[in-house]
Amino acid sequence: MSVLTLHNPHRMVSPPAILDLISPRGESSRPYVTLTWAQSLDAKIAGEGGKRVILSGPESMLMTHWMRSRHDSILVGINTLLLDDPRLQINLLPDDPSLSSPQPLILDPQLRFPTTARILAAWRDSQGRSRRVRQPWILCGDHVASARQKEMADAGARVVPVPLSHGRINPNDLPDILTRLNLSSVMIEGGSAILSSFLHAPSRSDGTPLVDNVVITVAPMFIGKGVGVIPEGQGDSMPELQTVHTETLGKDAVMVCRIV
Amino acid sequence: MSVLTLHNPHRMVSPPAILDLISPRGESSRPYVTLTWAQSLDAKIAGEGGKRVILSGPESMLMTHWMRSRHDSILVGINTLLLDDPRLQINLLPDDPSLSSPQPLILDPQLRFPTTARILAAWRDSQGRSRRVRQPWILCGDHVASARQKEMADAGARVVPVPLSHGRINPNDLPDILTRLNLSSVMIEGGSAILSSFLHAPSRSDGTPLVDNVVITVAPMFIGKGVGVIPEGQGDSMPELQTVHTETLGKDAVMVCRIV
Repeated sequence: MSVLTLHNPHRMVSPPAILDLISPRGESSRPYVTLTWAQSLDAKIAGEGGKRVILSGPESMLMTHWMRSRHDSILVGINTLLLDDPRLQINLLPDDPSLSSPQPLILDPQLRFPTTARILAAWRDSQGRSRRVRQPWILCGDHVASARQKEMADAGARVVPVPLSHGRINPNDLPDILTRLNLSSVMIEGGSAILSSFLHAPSRSDGTPLVDNVVITVAPMFIGKGVGVIPEGQGDSMPELQTVHTETLGKDAVMVCRIV
Repeated sequence: MSVLTLHNPHRMVSPPAILDLISPRGESSRPYVTLTWAQSLDAKIAGEGGKRVILSGPESMLMTHWMRSRHDSILVGINTLLLDDPRLQINLLPDDPSLSSPQPLILDPQLRFPTTARILAAWRDSQGRSRRVRQPWILCGDHVASARQKEMADAGARVVPVPLSHGRINPNDLPDILTRLNLSSVMIEGGSAILSSFLHAPSRSDGTPLVDNVVITVAPMFIGKGVGVIPEGQGDSMPELQTVHTETLGKDAVMVCRIV
């Protein structure tokens, strides 16, 4: 049985035990990286053209918010931001001062971030009034014109220029970027290009995988035509996973894995 | 937690509760159809070129054997037989006389079945000695030369000629074929062409889906290059599933669904 049997997710006032398997507040000196997504049985994370599909049930969605609260930062790519316009908050969690929102980070090499994004409006609207809403930080290429950078800063975002490699931010550069930003952990939520680049990233120089944990929610549905977890043509060589734990949350299965 | 916590699967001497959700011995007058497969996170059921990959852990493999024992018959396609050379038995279950093996059925339109198949050798070797090993029945097109049919019959199989439609056995013809063979239920285990044809089959004349239950085991691994649950090009329009139950069995998740 599930550890949760709730229709009102707010009934769950403490984090699910499965989260103890993900320990971003560990002893490691380097940033802790969790990769996570929800997928259908046919390995899709979105519908045709990237259209958002509700995959997670209420129980696993709540688990995701608990997991967010355990990380210093949460990262998505600019395509996900443009398609879903997410706010990346923890609004399903109890209103407890000890639960802090993770710092939202957007990987946006060309700085395509729209000034109309909901995450930015939420920040502007709430300044000083809600501990829960945090300023979005945008990691863009250091080649982006300073006028464009200033435009986004004026709109309320923090713009963080970083060096690009072949037009994109190299996943293996992320830990140093996080350390520079004083962030000790990150939860990477998508989209597929980002997930793929982190799953396929070379190991760190000490031989450990770049990604510490992979947390996958499998929803019992087919999407059919849609966006795969891994972009087409990149799914042939996949990393080997070691499963730490599998848990049923409502109708979904949540799997906590390590890359070996 | 799992209902099973075993290393030796024989320790489980009664069927897992999840099986109560699959009731082939119901009141229905028409044959009961269960579609089942084990898949990876990237929706593959086999490796490159159809190479067999162990997907199910011991707990879900045992559940599959229990599920087999609940059905009158078990069906696979000839490609699965040629690739995996399966015996389709219930050898993980306790040696209890009340547990009967399902009748093996092979969908084999052109009668490519090899006389060297293990399932046939097992039947020949065990005749009269084991209640558990049953004669394989091969459903082939009624156009197949009688000499070839006789060759297979002489080798020990029962050959059942059936009418073909566009060179294959129409999924919607299966219930009548089963009734004619005095089989009241079937568990269809693959391969991908068979799974796809049953998932995409039109509803029965009374409006109910051809498939009563879909039971999917999701193993927490990637296969990469391999054979999809659904053959390439057929995955864009998938049926809608209603999930009856999700259960964790070891590291795997087992989902019991209905097609709606």
